[in-house]
Amino acid sequence: MINRKYREMLNGKSVIRQLSEFATARGAEIGYENVFDFSLGNPSVPVPQEFNDTMIRLINEAAPTDLHGYSQSLGIPAVRAKIATSLSKRFGLPYTADHIFMASGAAGAIAHAVRCVTEPGDEVLTFAPYFPEYNPYINHSGAVLKVVPPNTKDFQINFEAFREMLTEKVMAVLINTPNNPSGVAYSEETVKKLAEILTEKSEEYGHEIYIISDEPYREITFDNKEIVYPSKFYKYTLSCYSFSKSLSIPGQRIGYVAIHPECPDAKDMVVMCGQISRGIGHNCPTALIQLAVADTCDLTADLSVYETNMNLIYDELKDLGFEVVRPGGTFYIFPKALEEDAKAFCEKALKHDLVFVPADSFGCPGYFRMAYCIETEKVKRALPVIRKFVETEYPNR
Amino acid sequence: MINRKYREMLNGKSVIRQLSEFATARGAEIGYENVFDFSLGNPSVPVPQEFNDTMIRLINEAAPTDLHGYSQSLGIPAVRAKIATSLSKRFGLPYTADHIFMASGAAGAIAHAVRCVTEPGDEVLTFAPYFPEYNPYINHSGAVLKVVPPNTKDFQINFEAFREMLTEKVMAVLINTPNNPSGVAYSEETVKKLAEILTEKSEEYGHEIYIISDEPYREITFDNKEIVYPSKFYKYTLSCYSFSKSLSIPGQRIGYVAIHPECPDAKDMVVMCGQISRGIGHNCPTALIQLAVADTCDLTADLSVYETNMNLIYDELKDLGFEVVRPGGTFYIFPKALEEDAKAFCEKALKHDLVFVPADSFGCPGYFRMAYCIETEKVKRALPVIRKFVETEYPNR
Repeated sequence: MINRKYREMLNGKSVIRQLSEFATARGAEIGYENVFDFSLGNPSVPVPQEFNDTMIRLINEAAPTDLHGYSQSLGIPAVRAKIATSLSKRFGLPYTADHIFMASGAAGAIAHAVRCVTEPGDEVLTFAPYFPEYNPYINHSGAVLKVVPPNTKDFQINFEAFREMLTEKVMAVLINTPNNPSGVAYSEETVKKLAEILTEKSEEYGHEIYIISDEPYREITFDNKEIVYPSKFYKYTLSCYSFSKSLSIPGQRIGYVAIHPECPDAKDMVVMCGQISRGIGHNCPTALIQLAVADTCDLTADLSVYETNMNLIYDELKDLGFEVVRPGGTFYIFPKALEEDAKAFCEKALKHDLVFVPADSFGCPGYFRMAYCIETEKVKRALPVIRKFVETEYPNR
Repeated sequence: MINRKYREMLNGKSVIRQLSEFATARGAEIGYENVFDFSLGNPSVPVPQEFNDTMIRLINEAAPTDLHGYSQSLGIPAVRAKIATSLSKRFGLPYTADHIFMASGAAGAIAHAVRCVTEPGDEVLTFAPYFPEYNPYINHSGAVLKVVPPNTKDFQINFEAFREMLTEKVMAVLINTPNNPSGVAYSEETVKKLAEILTEKSEEYGHEIYIISDEPYREITFDNKEIVYPSKFYKYTLSCYSFSKSLSIPGQRIGYVAIHPECPDAKDMVVMCGQISRGIGHNCPTALIQLAVADTCDLTADLSVYETNMNLIYDELKDLGFEVVRPGGTFYIFPKALEEDAKAFCEKALKHDLVFVPADSFGCPGYFRMAYCIETEKVKRALPVIRKFVETEYPNR
């Protein structure tokens, strides 16, 4: 008998995936250039040439056993050291190689982090709107994901609801700043207040409450602002990073867990991640890609296009009267739909070949997500289409 | 509170790893060339140049979004198709892309396969001697691994013990041929008898009993013999493959699950593997490496050195009077120790700078494993050292 839980999941296709498939199919009909596909968060800017050059250099020059041999189970030591140095310089925390565990992207990093700081039945809180893949990431570890309702005013944290849900059973809080899908980056005030509450409640409950910080968009911030790095404000933080967006290499599945250097047991927790790997069959990211990101971890692709696109779309949406918070980073924007049912709204948009994602599965009904990791030229062509869609479908607003 | 189960595992270092670390440390003292390190199963022959050339071609020629973009969750369709074609040609079974799930090595493949065909509490049987990593691979999925005692006569299956342990709770049987650590390849007679018993018991119990076939050594067979491919004899078989040994690229973490084309629900099971990935945070092997193995999946590194080494060692061990079964493949040999306590035997060997692994953790006390994936020159130098060790430590045999 095949596993019933996974068999049942066969019917539960993600909305994003369905819409993306629709966009592809529609593109085959009318030309993909005529489908304004804002469904998928797939980086569109090219990888930096230095990354490809580094890979070729490694292939040509590295000893075969270094390049193709087993990586140590926590990651290649020299790679972990380079990443620690880079983080220390940037954020002023004394990371060493011993605080870094190499993982296959943020998904892999979160899978390890959650198993490290929870046991089956423990609760993990996250904040709406949230990335729906957190459900399988967390629930399959045996922990239970609970979602704090959104603060729709500015998409910072709804602290009132958070305090209510932060019971003794909560062992970790999973945050994501800048945020998919809202595009909002947490303010220093928000992160400080979160840290204060967690410190207070950890003491009250007699156990640590960890922050698992999902940071794939750390490098995509707007208005020349640096991310408010959660680890700087709370030592029980596990930063889960991915190079997918910063280097535009999501297919290469590379990231890491960086545990705060002053977190008690930080080094043991990194070794525990190695044990967790054995159980989930992960066993290290690809050696070649580990070595390549070690030499390019201070670079990014040219990410400026995302800010350009954001400004174009934000201005147009405001002009059209949408209720929308200006993103602080990522390549998402998260406006309120023009009717209560965001699914109905998005279905009407589809008739205009505009592919938006209704936010019900992000824990925030009534809103929709636009992923603008597409060419600026196409964004510009989309704006009059959006205007026409709004004027046609919602003439009497 | 950090997870207690994984914290406790911090103390449970693998014997192989400990011995390998000893060999490295001893090598720093006396020169690694003077340590006869038969501990680690790390391929020693170089990757085929075609593999490196293919990677460079892909980096230079593929569109960045093809090369670096997200892979589909089951693997890149063209890669799955090429692997299916290769398997079909070789083994005469009608595999298509829909029967292939790309995974990060055999560890990743087994992690998916076991979750696909078992539910928590179900039993999986394997046969001693067995690869000790099966314990975390299976147990962390929620299933329970039970080990059938060895048939030390020829290291084929101990069918009597197997029949006794094959209760209604058993949902899968995990086999590994050619075998780590025995080096023995199952005969056609063995695989046929296994298939017969499973067919009979599946009917009796009213549920399928799957074979999960761990096949990283499929290409390393001796005496010009082809592997007896389990799927040819039993349609409820999930082949778990790794390119680590065939192409000498263990660091690149690439393999697949190939589900027998006539297995009911085979295609659904492949899609289920994609769902399992979401829960364990795996999300596809590296795109570059997927594309590279697709173009080189019919190649192997020059694996002939392993047979050369095996013959040298086997002949010497026989001449010294060891009880040992001649391997049919892999780069392992599995002699009986010269005293009952194989750990004591291996400790005495260490004094002669011979690093052998006692087989207690392989479920076969009294035996030891030698991994001969080292230079033939070093094997030749090791032979008189082994002779001297035996004559010194066991003079009165």
